[in-house]
Amino acid sequence: MSELTHFNEQGRAKMVDVSEKTETVRIALAHSSVEVNESIYQQIASGTNKKGDVFAVAQVAGIMAAKQTASIIPMCHPIPLTGVNIIFEWEIDKEKSRYLILIKAEAKTKGVTGVEMEALTAASAAALTIYDMCKAAGKEMVIGPTYLQKKSGGKNGDYERPLA
Amino acid sequence: MSELTHFNEQGRAKMVDVSEKTETVRIALAHSSVEVNESIYQQIASGTNKKGDVFAVAQVAGIMAAKQTASIIPMCHPIPLTGVNIIFEWEIDKEKSRYLILIKAEAKTKGVTGVEMEALTAASAAALTIYDMCKAAGKEMVIGPTYLQKKSGGKNGDYERPLA
Amino acid sequence: MSELTHFNEQGRAKMVDVSEKTETVRIALAHSSVEVNESIYQQIASGTNKKGDVFAVAQVAGIMAAKQTASIIPMCHPIPLTGVNIIFEWEIDKEKSRYLILIKAEAKTKGVTGVEMEALTAASAAALTIYDMCKAAGKEMVIGPTYLQKKSGGKNGDYERPLA
Amino acid sequence: MSELTHFNEQGRAKMVDVSEKTETVRIALAHSSVEVNESIYQQIASGTNKKGDVFAVAQVAGIMAAKQTASIIPMCHPIPLTGVNIIFEWEIDKEKSRYLILIKAEAKTKGVTGVEMEALTAASAAALTIYDMCKAAGKEMVIGPTYLQKKSGGKNGDYERPLA
Amino acid sequence: MSELTHFNEQGRAKMVDVSEKTETVRIALAHSSVEVNESIYQQIASGTNKKGDVFAVAQVAGIMAAKQTASIIPMCHPIPLTGVNIIFEWEIDKEKSRYLILIKAEAKTKGVTGVEMEALTAASAAALTIYDMCKAAGKEMVIGPTYLQKKSGGKNGDYERPLA
Amino acid sequence: MSELTHFNEQGRAKMVDVSEKTETVRIALAHSSVEVNESIYQQIASGTNKKGDVFAVAQVAGIMAAKQTASIIPMCHPIPLTGVNIIFEWEIDKEKSRYLILIKAEAKTKGVTGVEMEALTAASAAALTIYDMCKAAGKEMVIGPTYLQKKSGGKNGDYERPLA
Repeated sequence: MSELTHFNEQGRAKMVDVSEKTETVRIALAHSSVEVNESIYQQIASGTNKKGDVFAVAQVAGIMAAKQTASIIPMCHPIPLTGVNIIFEWEIDKEKSRYLILIKAEAKTKGVTGVEMEALTAASAAALTIYDMCKAAGKEMVIGPTYLQKKSGGKNGDYERPLA
Repeated sequence: MSELTHFNEQGRAKMVDVSEKTETVRIALAHSSVEVNESIYQQIASGTNKKGDVFAVAQVAGIMAAKQTASIIPMCHPIPLTGVNIIFEWEIDKEKSRYLILIKAEAKTKGVTGVEMEALTAASAAALTIYDMCKAAGKEMVIGPTYLQKKSGGKNGDYERPLA
Repeated sequence: MSELTHFNEQGRAKMVDVSEKTETVRIALAHSSVEVNESIYQQIASGTNKKGDVFAVAQVAGIMAAKQTASIIPMCHPIPLTGVNIIFEWEIDKEKSRYLILIKAEAKTKGVTGVEMEALTAASAAALTIYDMCKAAGKEMVIGPTYLQKKSGGKNGDYERPLA
Repeated sequence: MSELTHFNEQGRAKMVDVSEKTETVRIALAHSSVEVNESIYQQIASGTNKKGDVFAVAQVAGIMAAKQTASIIPMCHPIPLTGVNIIFEWEIDKEKSRYLILIKAEAKTKGVTGVEMEALTAASAAALTIYDMCKAAGKEMVIGPTYLQKKSGGKNGDYERPLA
Repeated sequence: MSELTHFNEQGRAKMVDVSEKTETVRIALAHSSVEVNESIYQQIASGTNKKGDVFAVAQVAGIMAAKQTASIIPMCHPIPLTGVNIIFEWEIDKEKSRYLILIKAEAKTKGVTGVEMEALTAASAAALTIYDMCKAAGKEMVIGPTYLQKKSGGKNGDYERPLA
Repeated sequence: MSELTHFNEQGRAKMVDVSEKTETVRIALAHSSVEVNESIYQQIASGTNKKGDVFAVAQVAGIMAAKQTASIIPMCHPIPLTGVNIIFEWEIDKEKSRYLILIKAEAKTKGVTGVEMEALTAASAAALTIYDMCKAAGKEMVIGPTYLQKKSGGKNGDYERPLA
């Protein structure tokens, strides 16, 4: 059975020692989403400029947050990120009035620990930013589910989320 | 119809002017959650110390992230937070093997803009921290849904999320 | 003759005491610019998306940097910014092959000290970001001159830069 | 008997609510020190430039750290600092070969909570910076004792440290 | 005689060049302490939860501060920390009413410069956090002495503090 | 023709992947300047202490900003800086009443991407700090031009700015 590896001999948290781990290329892909109402959907989608901008701001927020992961998540190691990319996609079901923005955030490093938290933090910050920029038009937005979709690199092998 | 208020005359984002808004006490309550597997549940719950610590670290992370909201969410105004509190609750359905950590984050200020984003950021950072501390024992955890449960203060009146 | 007000009794710098100053609405407008080559101009201008994005990223960078002013400029007071807006304009002289991006950054607060440094920091960060995003297409770009164009609020009265 | 006021109903820490506290001018003075060896003393003291600089860097570090207090100390409220000043004094006993740098850091605000932690953080960061800049010339330096010397403002009245 | 290596040719500070130094595993252990009164001692020690939490918050603060060392100490190089651990111990002399919390902070990296400052910053931030969480129950607490206990790795060889 | 390499397949910005680039020593030198009036010149130059301090604070600001480059410039990779140095020089033409402070900032790393942005950010922050410390004595100061003077390392070869 796997163990909680963040605890020290006093039963409290520590930043675990990774000095001896091997440097490899590591990639992680996280998904999140924001469900918005029709009015917000139309506002975002109705102009090239405007659509570009909500997502552009969210994207910058996600990338900058990825770089701040180790100062947001207490036990995270500082990681020299070598690449971050964020994609937005609409998933719309007009009959059910369901307007969903899918957020896919990929983080990459060449280092000794994985970048799952960087990808998850990027996706979360992008989602929070969309919420912030649209909240005047409806507070009932829902962020998430947010989860790890895929990772590769590192001695524990690759991971891909099973189909639901 | 409400408008996206974050855009300037060039169709790009700006930090909207709140100089003339009135200073009032404003409170926001956000909810998030982390669904974990039985093994993680048992590890967290099996020792007073250990349970205390995962949540204690997550709580500190959430409170510190609330204070960083304006540097994570690009168009957020810097806010003099006057209080933050985070509560964790287990919601367990053993038959369905469903182990859910509910996260309730409340932020408070006496200022000119609301603290929704601070509460949502606190809840998100707490959730990400739980994920980080438990990920060695299962990567299929799911964060969220994350949403605003309640807010009060400000000229737009109070809000409470309708029952699902 | 005005004095350097940042020095303490040991001849070293301090953050000057503003506890007794009156809270008023204060606005500052700073200008900067980036001179680029024709190739960069065409790349930025040739697609709605692409133009939008260089400026959109620069704009987010400028607004976020404005909020970090007090952690970048050592003797700056922390300021509760109430608004920031950044505008980009092209100034083109094709005969002289001169392609200039003008950056106008406005910062606003209701507080006890001015926001000149916030406006200047926003303009500088936006300019540096444009440089960063275009540097693969030419390293000879020039940033600036960067200066205060205008300010209002505070006991020293308003200021407007004289015509050159 | 006074209580630990940072705990919530689950026995964990929170940022206590100060929304209803009155805004007053608050000042705190903290002391720290660094004991160095004779060689470091002579290096710092032997040139106007050099002496100026170790202390100048330490001073800037202290002032900038004061502004970061709420992001270093988890339960600290963000405070709009209105002034910070740091003074260095030598306390030398050549017979005992004792070379002590006294650090006095004063922080000031007009706000709802005190600035003890800001003054203590400023003094600590200044001391750590002196250590960092001199450590090539002796690792046996000792920082501290670090303590609150004096505070004023707020409903609990003024405090002055009793003579030892 | 060793030299102050942080100065440039103008007699001012610089971040010294370490590009040619060899990457090795480096460890540093710093000690600090907080002396508290009996009332604070009893409050911290009287409940498992409560004791856990003051130290848990202090521990998270110390680990997060270790990661911020290069942004707190001006001439410090940014370091990819590979591990941080903090231990708390009570040292009590009831006859003399002396209640001392010992803080031992260890930092580790695989890099080109040492982690003394990271360990010292972690210990200092943990101490300041204990002060902050207990200050309502007594302002006469004393932080420190804070010093380097031990270091290993790097070309200058290992160091261990001589017995007092 | 070179391309804007910061855009992803949706036409929006990303942090480009540098995982496969080779680690080499990379150096960049950026220049900036601040033009001040005679009164500010005399105030800075008239006392050893005072001159030292405006530049000392600006220098610390520049070095600390260099370390924050990746959190100021959105698409910048985090870089393990191995050295930063900043030099100030006066360029005075008394007949034309022209008092210019030249700022030369050099950044160095051993890594996979260049340090142009770090050098430019250091120079810009130093210039902004001089402006901040002198603005009480004249708001007409001009910062810049700011540009890359020289770089070496990396597969694209060295660059030196041509004479004007």
